[in-house]
Amino acid sequence: MKSDLDALMQARQLDAILVFGDAENNPPMYYFVGGGHVSGAFLIKKVGKELVLFYNDMERDEAAKSGLKAVSFSEFPTSDFLEEADSDDQLAMALRFKKILSEYGITGGKVIVSGRVEFSQLYALIRKLVELMPELDIVSEAGLDSTLLRAMETKDDVEVARIRQMGAVTTTVVKLVQDYLTSCEVREDEVLLKEDGRPLTIGDVKGKISLWLAERAAVDVEGVIFAIGRDAGVPHSVGDPEDLMTLGKTIVFDIFPAEKGGGYFYDFTRTWSLGYATPEAQALYDQVHEIYDRVVENLDLNASFIDYQRMTCEYFEAKGHKSQLNTQAPLDGYVHSLGHGVGLNIHERPTSRLTESNDNILKPGVIITIEPGLYYPDKGMGFRIEDAYWVRPDGKIELLAEYPYDFVLPMKKWQNNK
Amino acid sequence: MKSDLDALMQARQLDAILVFGDAENNPPMYYFVGGGHVSGAFLIKKVGKELVLFYNDMERDEAAKSGLKAVSFSEFPTSDFLEEADSDDQLAMALRFKKILSEYGITGGKVIVSGRVEFSQLYALIRKLVELMPELDIVSEAGLDSTLLRAMETKDDVEVARIRQMGAVTTTVVKLVQDYLTSCEVREDEVLLKEDGRPLTIGDVKGKISLWLAERAAVDVEGVIFAIGRDAGVPHSVGDPEDLMTLGKTIVFDIFPAEKGGGYFYDFTRTWSLGYATPEAQALYDQVHEIYDRVVENLDLNASFIDYQRMTCEYFEAKGHKSQLNTQAPLDGYVHSLGHGVGLNIHERPTSRLTESNDNILKPGVIITIEPGLYYPDKGMGFRIEDAYWVRPDGKIELLAEYPYDFVLPMKKWQNNK
Repeated sequence: MKSDLDALMQARQLDAILVFGDAENNPPMYYFVGGGHVSGAFLIKKVGKELVLFYNDMERDEAAKSGLKAVSFSEFPTSDFLEEADSDDQLAMALRFKKILSEYGITGGKVIVSGRVEFSQLYALIRKLVELMPELDIVSEAGLDSTLLRAMETKDDVEVARIRQMGAVTTTVVKLVQDYLTSCEVREDEVLLKEDGRPLTIGDVKGKISLWLAERAAVDVEGVIFAIGRDAGVPHSVGDPEDLMTLGKTIVFDIFPAEKGGGYFYDFTRTWSLGYATPEAQALYDQVHEIYDRVVENLDLNASFIDYQRMTCEYFEAKGHKSQLNTQAPLDGYVHSLGHGVGLNIHERPTSRLTESNDNILKPGVIITIEPGLYYPDKGMGFRIEDAYWVRPDGKIELLAEYPYDFVLPMKKWQNNK
Repeated sequence: MKSDLDALMQARQLDAILVFGDAENNPPMYYFVGGGHVSGAFLIKKVGKELVLFYNDMERDEAAKSGLKAVSFSEFPTSDFLEEADSDDQLAMALRFKKILSEYGITGGKVIVSGRVEFSQLYALIRKLVELMPELDIVSEAGLDSTLLRAMETKDDVEVARIRQMGAVTTTVVKLVQDYLTSCEVREDEVLLKEDGRPLTIGDVKGKISLWLAERAAVDVEGVIFAIGRDAGVPHSVGDPEDLMTLGKTIVFDIFPAEKGGGYFYDFTRTWSLGYATPEAQALYDQVHEIYDRVVENLDLNASFIDYQRMTCEYFEAKGHKSQLNTQAPLDGYVHSLGHGVGLNIHERPTSRLTESNDNILKPGVIITIEPGLYYPDKGMGFRIEDAYWVRPDGKIELLAEYPYDFVLPMKKWQNNK
């Protein structure tokens, strides 16, 4: 969590973290600023020092809301540097940042540059800055091992409350979807009908999901997976909006909304079959449910997340499915890993990927998803169950949002006479 | 537009543009892929060649929807490179990209690296890649002068249609807001009341705006400015959600929604005063409206955008206001520039900033905003009028979404007895 940041920086002998970009939809900046309409900002986290946020004047009110020490860019007008830069705008910008950095005590040392921004733009600036400040050492950190992702890996109480609240929004919306679907009229060919008598499509359902999220200040910013039949068998197929909702096919409903403005995510999946299920689908669902339960019952404080991925692969392979344990990049069976951390990024530390290092552990403060699944696109079916769990400071592991695990959802206006 | 890209690349002797990241909320990738749930992808645009999109297997359906030549990353398993990389994951990843690039004919030359991604991650990869491929010259381009922004500057018919459609959504929602506000009951102290009799807040109004946008597959992804009184006097103050809606104060309503999933933006502003306006506010509004009209009447094919900013500054200064023409970073008066291009980025080429080069011209295909304003936070008021205009291939300049310019909005259930 944020309070670990100085220690993490000291351990890596980092002098500063520099964050660029907007506060919205930019996890590193959001993490420090707390969101809001602060665009094109710059933030300095010097080891052992308070944060300093640089903002554009038009956004002075928004910058003030962050509660951080805030300094206007206009104290460092780019025009001051144009002469020295011989009217080279890029160079003037780099000279300005050099001036800002030195004024805040950074003239060299190990520095991280972070922020979700257009790469080519910041790359140009950083390259010029490094030329101007050869003592500056821009540190490369490996993927999930970055200092910021290490800090973000454990959540403080405020963050847990926000993710839990997003979980409550998620399950509320899932219940609305379930109630809506099961209340539909059904045509003779088992296609669901809308209020106006036309067939219900995936696009219709997704429209309702977006709306129900928006009513609750949540956004499906990275989309929603609502996939039926064959598409359900491809884990990240979001579903064809023209597909008709029909009985007896597997529906993978993976919903991962975030707080409006680029805040905290929740991540949740259920698999449904409306009205009835084929025996084959029911059997496969039962396997997914069984290993889900087994993993959850066995979750232990400070255990290695990857061990649960291994457990899941072994279970599925024993049932005759392919998995990443013994197949490279399988396209059916259990094709992905068990879960991931969730926070300001939909995927963050810790990870359960078999190829990652063993320091992905269930330590106090992490919030992880558990999401085993099975995928058979050629059979027209797919399955996944996913919930998020918090490893509490007291070592207990808590489900953040409850929801039933029913696979077959009975239709209120349709009788199964088969 | 996209069809200009090869010529733009040739003019700069670029060999390739490499784009990284998701298709959603990442303008460069969206531009080529057209959106959809394609995450962590990679795209090669080699000069004179067709695009190639690299995707993760779980997203094979989404990649196929792009219509591009699509290749699975699994054809280049990272594990193939782990031995050569001595188990250094970062190095293995760089070796993999080296292999992909060389297989698609890129072994050196001038290359742009683009994409809205976490900077530190891609920086680490690119640094390693440059070490492995010293013949690769990663080109820095200055801000708005980048090749991609040059291509994006002019819009093709499909893009114009999408922005126009977002304009129709925008004005529909603005009308809903206007109708809602003017239908409210008004308390004795001139505070508007909700249906339940409680005071109407800015937060309430913004909630409705989000919802009405979501119903139309649009998202206020970068927020909405709905600011009253003093906050209206700070151009990018988004408004305090606790503020009460009251009569007789200026309301700056700047709405810039995008197509869901990170698509095209529209950008629009009106300034309202509910029930009545103070004479001072009315006079200032009239000035903003007058210069808005004057600029629009004078828009000419192939004129310099910056000339209109100068015209606007001169007008406002003649009326006794500060502007950027003769004041550095003014905090009241006319404090910003006249407009900007709009597309997949809310701000793109051309720009009207006085400090930019004179090649920001109103050439066929550009879509620009015209948005003069006046800001007096200490007087508790601010004003802005903004619409988007398209310079058509035939040279005519067309307003993309019509909406009235009324300043005082009469209240249906309140009589002005002053």
